[in-house]
Amino acid sequence: MWAELLPVGRSAASGGYRRFAWNSADAECRAWFEQQARSRGLTYELDRNGNQWAWLGDPQGQGAIVTGSHLDSVPDGGAFDGPLGVVSSFAALDELRARGVEFDKPLAIVNFGDEEGARFGVACIGSRLTAGVLSREAAYELRDAGGVRLPDAMEKAGYDPTAIGADDERLARIGAFVELHVEQGRHLAEGQPVGAAGAIWPHGRWRFDFHGEANHAGTTRIEDRRDPMLTYANTVLAARKKAKLAGALATFGKVAVEPNGTNAIASLVRGWLDTRAADERTLTELVAEIERAATERGERDGVRVELTRESYTPVVDFDGPLRDRLAKLLDAPVLPTGAGHDAGILASAIPTAMLFVRNPTGVSHSPAEHAEEADCLAGVAALADVLEDLACQ
Amino acid sequence: MWAELLPVGRSAASGGYRRFAWNSADAECRAWFEQQARSRGLTYELDRNGNQWAWLGDPQGQGAIVTGSHLDSVPDGGAFDGPLGVVSSFAALDELRARGVEFDKPLAIVNFGDEEGARFGVACIGSRLTAGVLSREAAYELRDAGGVRLPDAMEKAGYDPTAIGADDERLARIGAFVELHVEQGRHLAEGQPVGAAGAIWPHGRWRFDFHGEANHAGTTRIEDRRDPMLTYANTVLAARKKAKLAGALATFGKVAVEPNGTNAIASLVRGWLDTRAADERTLTELVAEIERAATERGERDGVRVELTRESYTPVVDFDGPLRDRLAKLLDAPVLPTGAGHDAGILASAIPTAMLFVRNPTGVSHSPAEHAEEADCLAGVAALADVLEDLACQ
Repeated sequence: MWAELLPVGRSAASGGYRRFAWNSADAECRAWFEQQARSRGLTYELDRNGNQWAWLGDPQGQGAIVTGSHLDSVPDGGAFDGPLGVVSSFAALDELRARGVEFDKPLAIVNFGDEEGARFGVACIGSRLTAGVLSREAAYELRDAGGVRLPDAMEKAGYDPTAIGADDERLARIGAFVELHVEQGRHLAEGQPVGAAGAIWPHGRWRFDFHGEANHAGTTRIEDRRDPMLTYANTVLAARKKAKLAGALATFGKVAVEPNGTNAIASLVRGWLDTRAADERTLTELVAEIERAATERGERDGVRVELTRESYTPVVDFDGPLRDRLAKLLDAPVLPTGAGHDAGILASAIPTAMLFVRNPTGVSHSPAEHAEEADCLAGVAALADVLEDLACQ
Repeated sequence: MWAELLPVGRSAASGGYRRFAWNSADAECRAWFEQQARSRGLTYELDRNGNQWAWLGDPQGQGAIVTGSHLDSVPDGGAFDGPLGVVSSFAALDELRARGVEFDKPLAIVNFGDEEGARFGVACIGSRLTAGVLSREAAYELRDAGGVRLPDAMEKAGYDPTAIGADDERLARIGAFVELHVEQGRHLAEGQPVGAAGAIWPHGRWRFDFHGEANHAGTTRIEDRRDPMLTYANTVLAARKKAKLAGALATFGKVAVEPNGTNAIASLVRGWLDTRAADERTLTELVAEIERAATERGERDGVRVELTRESYTPVVDFDGPLRDRLAKLLDAPVLPTGAGHDAGILASAIPTAMLFVRNPTGVSHSPAEHAEEADCLAGVAALADVLEDLACQ
């Protein structure tokens, strides 16, 4: 099962995955999901937002227990982030059938579309639409780097975009959602192979536009320059320094430069800041401090700084009773995380929990992302235990 | 004449020009050149390296006086850099014909191909090939950002790339080359409208590769990171600081990031450094100091720094007697410049001079590049005087 999925959308050059929403690698992953569902005799269903479901029992029944994750990736992402949760869900079902378990409630495995937001710049589009956190109107305005609109991308991939939007009825039928995911840090590195999620740190993305003046790099005197690359560079260093002081995270991982010529001083540098902190007040203060540092340096450089908040997710506390039940059942530690997940989006609407599988290096969003096979099997067993406990109570 | 050329290859969004070697805007500029030549009854010629020539008199004659410049642009470049020299050449010829001047020597106007190097990363490809400074073999290996090889790009544009290479016979027939160009600094801003070039500063392009480790921006602890963006940022600031101390220029205007995702710590940041200084020793020491600063910071960040020299042009002293003759004839000041030109490439092979036309703001390689009409006309008159002096002696 895992072996079939491994080569899909993998770049020969980087060894990383390029499974972006509605591209051909994504389509192959989706075909794989449907085939896994049908080969197990599960009822396959595509919802109004392009999320895939595989049902054991009545899809219209009440109190369904749902597990799953996503199959798309960041640019040059690893093999585990997302797919481990989906593959483990099917494996856990196989395990429960082998145990001869009879379920009292409908059980479903889900693949949420476009979790990483690599193509349209907004993460968790599939679950955000379902939960009504992203409006249909806003989704219709999203464009990828090539200018393609989200509905057009869906249509090109053979999906009808006219029905996208909040899906309250579907959520009302779900009793609990449990997402298994490879850990993206090293809290489990020295301890148990599986943990339960406590909360997701609040996080956001801000775009800094540094406006300078294009000019010839070989002839413009230093005193005549308005070089936004300097302001950007200073802001990158200030962000790291201030995040460290605040016990938070701040990262510039994406840059766009105009005109981006070797012998031209840039007219515009765009830098995207990703920030996370344990609480919202710390996060807000951190971004304000970084903005202040950017603006002060910009004044020295003759560069105008413009700040745009592109996304923001408040702190997510997973369902307390569910979390405690899982932790007790598995005798597993409870961990915080800085990463966003579909489970985090759904937590506002339905009882939601997450299981993390040990990541020995903590590396993720990279071809080097890894989990040991024994830990993955421990994850499957834990997920099976949880599903049995929830669906047979 | 000028009005016909103005809209070609202009971006509606930026107002800047995108005339890159062998693209469709370049083809339109070339068609314009041929039409200007033919409409004046000049002999049109395309040389083995794709440079265009318009001859008055015998193209095979000895001691030819040549003027001209280039028609391609940097990304989002201005209207004057290059085209002013070509347009002024045709206008100067018109002026000399109006004066009833009879020439003792062949006169030619030239459009050198791919001066800016915007597409294949090497500047002055047309003149470098002609002068034998760029070998045919090396030119065949050049690729643009989309992976297209230079010879394939030439062929697609309808030019035969099989004959490219050194053109000694052609150079041997040239008595002098004079290139008129808009100034790319402000030496003339307060004084006369036209000056003569003394020397071109040595300059070079270095590529810094900062190798870190891709990871999740939301979950990787600060102490577990190997973030090359930090090393890059520090190097940008160090380059500016050290250049200022050395009275030189150092610019990072081009960056490429992998994977360039908002929520991913970069695995690789590539930054291109453009440096210029009054003498070669200062330049060499400056680059060594910037490399040292990059490596030291890289050790702190867990980032490996790799430095590649992509191009280097030693100091160019223009022909002394020719320069003095022009300066005396025009009563014009002699200026230094940090910019490379086809004239600089040819200076090692034939007597070469340059005229600069005032640029009130000093801005170039930008849509805001500008010269006043009166100054452009003064440039045409000066060029006509120089051609008359050289071709009728």
